[in-house]
Amino acid sequence: MDPQTLFWLVPAASLIALLFAAIFFFNMKKADEGTDRMKEIAGYVREGAMAYLKQQYKVVAIFFVIIAVVFGVMAYFGLQNNIVPVAFLTGGIFSGLAGFIGMKTATYASGRVAEACRDEHDGLNRGLKLAFRSGAVLGLTVVGFGLLDISAWYLILDNTGLVQGEGVSKLVEITTIMLTFGMGASLQALFARVGGGIYTKAADVGADLVGKTEFHFNEDDPRNPATIADNVGDNVGDVAGMGADLYESYAGSILASAALGAAAVASAHGTAEQGLQMVMAPMIIGAVGAILSVLGIFIVRTKQGATQSQLMAALNRGINFSGVLIALAAAGVLYLLGIENWLGLWGSIVIGLVVGILIGKVTEYYTSFEYKPVKFIAENATTGPATVIISGIGVGMISTCWPVIFIVLGTIGAYLCAAGGLEFSSANLSMGLYGIGIAAVGMLSTLGLTLATDAYGPISDNAGGNAEMSGLGESVRSRTDALDALGNTTAATGKGFAIGSAALTALALLASYIEELKIAAGRLGDADITLSLFSGPVGKGAEVATWDIATFMSKFEVTLMNPKVLLGIFIGAMLSFLFCGLTMNAVGRAAKRMVEEVRSQLADKDVLEGRKKADYARCVGISTQGAQREMIIPSLIAVVVPILTGLFMGVAGVFGLLAGGLAGGFVLAVFMANSGGAWDNAKKFIETGDAPFCGKHTPIHDASVVGDTVGDPFKDTSGPSLNILIKLMSMVSIVTAGLNIVFSLL
Amino acid sequence: MDPQTLFWLVPAASLIALLFAAIFFFNMKKADEGTDRMKEIAGYVREGAMAYLKQQYKVVAIFFVIIAVVFGVMAYFGLQNNIVPVAFLTGGIFSGLAGFIGMKTATYASGRVAEACRDEHDGLNRGLKLAFRSGAVLGLTVVGFGLLDISAWYLILDNTGLVQGEGVSKLVEITTIMLTFGMGASLQALFARVGGGIYTKAADVGADLVGKTEFHFNEDDPRNPATIADNVGDNVGDVAGMGADLYESYAGSILASAALGAAAVASAHGTAEQGLQMVMAPMIIGAVGAILSVLGIFIVRTKQGATQSQLMAALNRGINFSGVLIALAAAGVLYLLGIENWLGLWGSIVIGLVVGILIGKVTEYYTSFEYKPVKFIAENATTGPATVIISGIGVGMISTCWPVIFIVLGTIGAYLCAAGGLEFSSANLSMGLYGIGIAAVGMLSTLGLTLATDAYGPISDNAGGNAEMSGLGESVRSRTDALDALGNTTAATGKGFAIGSAALTALALLASYIEELKIAAGRLGDADITLSLFSGPVGKGAEVATWDIATFMSKFEVTLMNPKVLLGIFIGAMLSFLFCGLTMNAVGRAAKRMVEEVRSQLADKDVLEGRKKADYARCVGISTQGAQREMIIPSLIAVVVPILTGLFMGVAGVFGLLAGGLAGGFVLAVFMANSGGAWDNAKKFIETGDAPFCGKHTPIHDASVVGDTVGDPFKDTSGPSLNILIKLMSMVSIVTAGLNIVFSLL
Repeated sequence: MDPQTLFWLVPAASLIALLFAAIFFFNMKKADEGTDRMKEIAGYVREGAMAYLKQQYKVVAIFFVIIAVVFGVMAYFGLQNNIVPVAFLTGGIFSGLAGFIGMKTATYASGRVAEACRDEHDGLNRGLKLAFRSGAVLGLTVVGFGLLDISAWYLILDNTGLVQGEGVSKLVEITTIMLTFGMGASLQALFARVGGGIYTKAADVGADLVGKTEFHFNEDDPRNPATIADNVGDNVGDVAGMGADLYESYAGSILASAALGAAAVASAHGTAEQGLQMVMAPMIIGAVGAILSVLGIFIVRTKQGATQSQLMAALNRGINFSGVLIALAAAGVLYLLGIENWLGLWGSIVIGLVVGILIGKVTEYYTSFEYKPVKFIAENATTGPATVIISGIGVGMISTCWPVIFIVLGTIGAYLCAAGGLEFSSANLSMGLYGIGIAAVGMLSTLGLTLATDAYGPISDNAGGNAEMSGLGESVRSRTDALDALGNTTAATGKGFAIGSAALTALALLASYIEELKIAAGRLGDADITLSLFSGPVGKGAEVATWDIATFMSKFEVTLMNPKVLLGIFIGAMLSFLFCGLTMNAVGRAAKRMVEEVRSQLADKDVLEGRKKADYARCVGISTQGAQREMIIPSLIAVVVPILTGLFMGVAGVFGLLAGGLAGGFVLAVFMANSGGAWDNAKKFIETGDAPFCGKHTPIHDASVVGDTVGDPFKDTSGPSLNILIKLMSMVSIVTAGLNIVFSLL
Repeated sequence: MDPQTLFWLVPAASLIALLFAAIFFFNMKKADEGTDRMKEIAGYVREGAMAYLKQQYKVVAIFFVIIAVVFGVMAYFGLQNNIVPVAFLTGGIFSGLAGFIGMKTATYASGRVAEACRDEHDGLNRGLKLAFRSGAVLGLTVVGFGLLDISAWYLILDNTGLVQGEGVSKLVEITTIMLTFGMGASLQALFARVGGGIYTKAADVGADLVGKTEFHFNEDDPRNPATIADNVGDNVGDVAGMGADLYESYAGSILASAALGAAAVASAHGTAEQGLQMVMAPMIIGAVGAILSVLGIFIVRTKQGATQSQLMAALNRGINFSGVLIALAAAGVLYLLGIENWLGLWGSIVIGLVVGILIGKVTEYYTSFEYKPVKFIAENATTGPATVIISGIGVGMISTCWPVIFIVLGTIGAYLCAAGGLEFSSANLSMGLYGIGIAAVGMLSTLGLTLATDAYGPISDNAGGNAEMSGLGESVRSRTDALDALGNTTAATGKGFAIGSAALTALALLASYIEELKIAAGRLGDADITLSLFSGPVGKGAEVATWDIATFMSKFEVTLMNPKVLLGIFIGAMLSFLFCGLTMNAVGRAAKRMVEEVRSQLADKDVLEGRKKADYARCVGISTQGAQREMIIPSLIAVVVPILTGLFMGVAGVFGLLAGGLAGGFVLAVFMANSGGAWDNAKKFIETGDAPFCGKHTPIHDASVVGDTVGDPFKDTSGPSLNILIKLMSMVSIVTAGLNIVFSLL
């Protein structure tokens, strides 16, 4: 079938996804909001969340304007295509909008979920469905806006005179321009993850340290002044932040694959038809995935009075159903597109899907109290907090082994399938890298559904908070707790998925960095290309643009014995740690201010005994300010270091930086997410009473609470922020590729 | 001057160093041992330490025999020179012997230092000198044996018929064979660091958790059954382990530089004279450093009744004096050798010396309570143990920034100085890499003295233990405490130095891996060279042996876009974490057994109240068994993974693995060492009473003790073990280089 015809699936899928997002949103709005007290609580959370988001978008807007101006100047000097500054903005705006809508939905939904749970007959089921479909609004908005942005720009660039050229070379130009759109999404994601992460954990740690540890309050006790901020944080970090993170991976993987596909055909001197097939494949697979995700959402339903494990099964049914359908449909798409090696590429896609699932399973193994690692940490609570921390760090570090092995085997598999052979060589490098990109697309094709289960978590968590604060009684709270427990499992899997997809996406972005350099060099035509302050010319621009990847790497000496590459790897690995350290301390500082505020409010006997309402707004304000203030420096580092590295150490240094940052960041992110998750559940295990050493407010439980508190910034601030770091550094290098070669003009 | 004549400085320096080691040892033995109780305590520690070391050497011996047999088989099939199995053993034996002598000295010395401190008039000064000169036994033994091993093998290989060839190519062959000797030292160091690290921290954590936290004993309270094991641990980990670690760096940096120097001259088609100059330079600089270190040791003396800061100044005077003299002498050596670019190489050496000092200073900044970071952690103790941990991890992660920047700038500087230009290019690559190696030699040239200050720490720590357990009274204990405090400062600096030198040494080893591959390929002559199971032939052996580094890297596709390289980097980074996680958990498990033992002994009222002697031997046994059992798996991983990576992913994969392991391991090691050190001193800061929140046994102090306990395995087990991991993986790859190409024979 004609690829151009099939392309229309992309905007169609985008509209379908957005349509169903709207339907789920308005259906949710129709549900009953419950008692006045419930409305009041939900109102606090909603106001706090929206106030924060507005504040964040203000800061982000300033950054975006500055960078758009810089890009404009670069474009004026021929270092970038003129469209980039505008496209950069649309990426950022759509990503922000998806987060905004998702979060708005979540804050409307949670009170209503609590209300649904009050139904004595069908509460659990009604709550599940409402929470899940509200979560689906985020999933479908992210996917819908992503596909909309991609298809709109493709149509504009293909059909107007903005891009010159013919055939494959036009495709290469279009796709490499489109790739730079991802930068906007990336930057937006950075602020959402870092700012949101700091917000949520400052509130959480602050609320726990005083409320739980000093006063032995329960979670979400309305007397605790930080409790609203804590609930706001769930939305800000886990809904808006997670959405922006995966929006970036989603768009990034599709765009990088398209660029790699066009480049692969160009370097093999293929036809325009073949080029179009390669460019269309990732987009259409994304589109098909979006449509089938909607179907999967409708599968998630359960009979009345279902048990917990039946609920889990209902959720899994939806995910498995869509996954299998997408895998089958992908084969059809590739075949219909007329791609010669359609079976091989299909293999790459299936590998991506499977790796995503496997990483999720490993994450579950290391963070669920069904298994040995968490039980081991819980046992270590019997000898106090120090051994809880030591064992948690040990478990987290060991847990990095399998995800790396899966990524390594998956990448090798995806490469070889796409390359259609059992050997790595410079001849099949382009196609192999395309295979890695398309594996990332495969992994992310279920995103509409995966994100729905992710966003489901904080919604049901907040529903529980609402129930507690509104004093809804034990039976309602037990139902919201059940929903929340389900959410904890999906959250752990979701985090593994987010990291895994970030790694594959970043690998694809790293590969497409070369294409950007070639395009930038080509634009300079006769000029000598010099790629850092301290290097001699490597060739004329027009010549550099024609080199294949292997030639390129060898001419630029991007080999491992070039000290610039080795040292770049050092800097990249260090940057992951620096970034984490800064965000850890940011949480520490903001949490300290929160602790002081909560302590001073609870010093008032009337507040402590519930006769006087706590001042929630002050705590919300502290988290908001803390997040805003603290997110600036880590964000600047992520943007500035790749540019400076390029300036002084050239392309070789940048490659080292990206590789070191990617590998170091991935491993560190897995460690932090899994340690954090394991501590959280070790505490829960001790609370369940199934452990031989159980019960709240014992010294053993107190020791496990220390682990949980340390784990908070691990798993919800620093760890997830690394997902963005590894993608953003590649994006910054891609977008500023032209800057690297500006020195040839001096 | 004739390099061959100057060479005799090397064995001469070796004998001088060993002679003074013997003098210091016998002088120490002459000192008074003190009361019967003091002798008894010292006896327990000595017996425990020797029993452990014997046990460890038994396990190590089994490994060594197995590996020597494997090497013998490899040599039989032409995959390795016949001398390697024997040389492998001498490296291991000398390294083990140096550790043994150093530790024996330390266990004899500490009781005598306590006795010296009983002198009311001159106790502090006498104690300092005795402890320092006893520490110097380790420093001089390491340096002496290192130079002895190197010079003996050089003489044997140069003067017998064991190595064929003429001129430069003979030098290349000799130096690459000698390089493989380092493997023995490396493996010995691994067991010493990992086993010793597990031993010492299992004892320390176990002693603290029950003794300090549950029963509020003081450090070294004789009622605590784990206290002897704790004192043994200091010797096992910080003396024997540190000595073996630096023996390896010392020998490794000299051997790698010699190999790189010969290779650089060979690739520039230089004369045999030039080759000899390059090969001799690192050896002779090591020799001059050894002699001047002895001089520096004699400078460390102080007038009677000196204050603490005067003592520190006395120590620094010795170090600075030797450092400056060595720098000057190095210029003379290079000039006398007749090296053309002697000034440039001298620059590389000075850079190495300066980087070592700078990394030490940064370590001090992040781990001393004179400065902001530790105070910040101490403040965080006011909000409980969780914030102590969060802030300590934050500080440790941030602290990785400067050491990486220093290593990066130092490496660039050393490269450019040696290469004699301001540009990196494939033409000056060989000389530049030689510059990196010689910078490592420069950094380590003061080792005799640096190790003396390192070993001084545990000796004075044990002296304090002896004083406490023998009930020597407050005034003696205050003097031993003063000596101990001095030791804590030098320990932090020493750790930074150990990591920094490991990184530079590993960089040099990585570079010399290529030379090993070329020699191995050359040995196969006409055979097709295939460097992994999944790759096609790259050329005939004889041809491969002639390639320069740039050609080599490009033919083997060791570029950053080769997925095997990228994935190797992932595996390398992951391995550092896995290795740390395993050792962390090993400490956790062994400490748990210790806690149970101590608790059960203290359940006896008579033991608790000091009427019945605690059973120290059981605790010593638990630590010994724990260390032996737990060190096997991490050690196997370090040896096996590089071999497997080579098998499946070839040379490209191995390069990635080494680079990823080096960068990831270095950053992780700095993080762990500094976090651990900072926690330790945050606790001490709170104990001093200078903090606004001070005093023992308050909740704030308890919170800081949690940090200190978590920090124990960070800074004394996992962190330092990484030093070995990054060097050993290179060593394993170097020694098994021939294995990589065996596939060409299949």
